[in-house]
Amino acid sequence: MHLTKVNLADKLSKFSEHWSPKIVANYNGNDVMVIKVQGEFVWHSHAETDDLFLVLSGEIDIELRDQTITLGVGEMFVVPAGVEHRPVAKQEAHLLLIEPSGTPNTGNVKTAASKVII
Amino acid sequence: MHLTKVNLADKLSKFSEHWSPKIVANYNGNDVMVIKVQGEFVWHSHAETDDLFLVLSGEIDIELRDQTITLGVGEMFVVPAGVEHRPVAKQEAHLLLIEPSGTPNTGNVKTAASKVII
Repeated sequence: MHLTKVNLADKLSKFSEHWSPKIVANYNGNDVMVIKVQGEFVWHSHAETDDLFLVLSGEIDIELRDQTITLGVGEMFVVPAGVEHRPVAKQEAHLLLIEPSGTPNTGNVKTAASKVII
Repeated sequence: MHLTKVNLADKLSKFSEHWSPKIVANYNGNDVMVIKVQGEFVWHSHAETDDLFLVLSGEIDIELRDQTITLGVGEMFVVPAGVEHRPVAKQEAHLLLIEPSGTPNTGNVKTAASKVII
């Protein structure tokens, strides 16, 4: 079995589009993803799963209905299952995300981005 | 519900001991942990779970029986369930780890470090 490491900066250099998560590894049935974000995403929640964000570069606001969590590089936040949230990035930011494989990024399969492996 | 972010550098500043994982967040029944490592850990495997390593500072070798994966900052590796591995760090390195809550870090509850929440 040949196993390889994942260099996150290298993966991020392979695409430029925003809000389009790219799968870089699998962990116990979860997709580990990198994403580039800028601007406002949609309000959504995931009934069945927590949502893990780790900032790799830039800054992002995770808006909740009753507070806003501002994350810089090296900061992480877990949105608990069922909690409505909206990510907003004033400038481009790069994130690491973990979600169970198959989780729609908008909380709704009809509006979700497809997640491709890079 | 008041939710807070996790600053990984801040968490790492709170302890100095090696090979003693500290829980900083929970994600769907998994412990998200930071750890400081230096020297050689024991050969072990986890029959039931993958093992995710992300390097935050320094460098670590993940020795497998048939190859060695050298990870620097911003590099990640998932040891598949059942695969024997031994982490070795020549100098101190800081890592982010994810494992299902309750997973013994040595693969054996008798020799495992206790994981505390910080």
